[in-house]
Amino acid sequence: MRVGNLPGIRRLPIYLNLLRAMREEGVENASASALADMAGLVASVVRKDLEMTGASGTTGRGFCVGALIADIESFLGWDNPNDAFLVGAGNLGSALLGHRDLRSHGVNFIAAFDTDPAKIGQTIHGVEVLPVEKLVSLGQRMHVRMGLLCVPNEVAQETADRLVDGGITRIWSFAPNILKVPKGVTVQREDLSAGLAELLVKSMGLGT
Amino acid sequence: MRVGNLPGIRRLPIYLNLLRAMREEGVENASASALADMAGLVASVVRKDLEMTGASGTTGRGFCVGALIADIESFLGWDNPNDAFLVGAGNLGSALLGHRDLRSHGVNFIAAFDTDPAKIGQTIHGVEVLPVEKLVSLGQRMHVRMGLLCVPNEVAQETADRLVDGGITRIWSFAPNILKVPKGVTVQREDLSAGLAELLVKSMGLGT
Repeated sequence: MRVGNLPGIRRLPIYLNLLRAMREEGVENASASALADMAGLVASVVRKDLEMTGASGTTGRGFCVGALIADIESFLGWDNPNDAFLVGAGNLGSALLGHRDLRSHGVNFIAAFDTDPAKIGQTIHGVEVLPVEKLVSLGQRMHVRMGLLCVPNEVAQETADRLVDGGITRIWSFAPNILKVPKGVTVQREDLSAGLAELLVKSMGLGT
Repeated sequence: MRVGNLPGIRRLPIYLNLLRAMREEGVENASASALADMAGLVASVVRKDLEMTGASGTTGRGFCVGALIADIESFLGWDNPNDAFLVGAGNLGSALLGHRDLRSHGVNFIAAFDTDPAKIGQTIHGVEVLPVEKLVSLGQRMHVRMGLLCVPNEVAQETADRLVDGGITRIWSFAPNILKVPKGVTVQREDLSAGLAELLVKSMGLGT
């Protein structure tokens, strides 16, 4: 297993954003402590996170910005386009189809799927909405590996099953359900409710 | 500080969803191990998470479903409506205004704000879009405490400053930036890029 430090993996995009901004400004070298300052973190944490990607810095000079960007992108697999399906072209699904961060991180939407006849045939942010019945055959034919799940809770499991049948091995789910998938399929669940819970309890803890 | 176990806090909405579904089906009692099975977790973890809320079960019978729902909601502050502003009524902001999970968890959108004249005056999912210049005075007048930040990176910090000036103490940010806020203000950052990073690295670790 290559995975060890999930919090660190989740912090890598923070560094990547900072480094890309530095590159745009013509900055050539970056130290772990400079990155730590900007991100509000401790330098030792940043150093450990960056080590994970195989990047190597020089004492005194720090990291070469361009090389470090390449190392992080390669570690995350963001240097290769990730062909993806999206199922459920509602409010959230449509917003994701147009989200510039996803595109800049290599997510390449091949098609969207829905059951609503009013949506089928539409093009949302340049992506065509197809009937969900076509998902399995198209997934198998095009070897798409990533699927974003933006359907209501009630149909989340059956839609996940359909994605698996279509050969999807990476499901990014925005439904609150806990999905059951076969071995070899990875599910990443984005849970807005969890974020809200964390915000409210943290703020109550501060006593304001 | 009331906070100790953030992963546990983030799991509470999972239990809440399961318990609400049980209540709808007329189920009166729930054991930690039954909840654990449904959520794909270990019973001891569920038990510890639920203890945090002050809920108490009975050996053999488990928890009373209705009381446990009330305990979790009260712990999370979801039994009181949380008046909120949303800034940035773009794709993602509009989707959040219409997100049923937020409404069912007590988020009560008072107004949305934008700088785009084409959006100002519109009503999105029942919420009026106002010019962002009105945010500070309206926040102070209405004692709104929560603000959702859905603006582009470039203006995220200045918008956060504006929310703080308007009396907002809980900022839920969907911008990738690290925000600097005064003491007493809590920021919860939702980072899509972090989720994507986690998904890709986890799936590479599985070797598929």
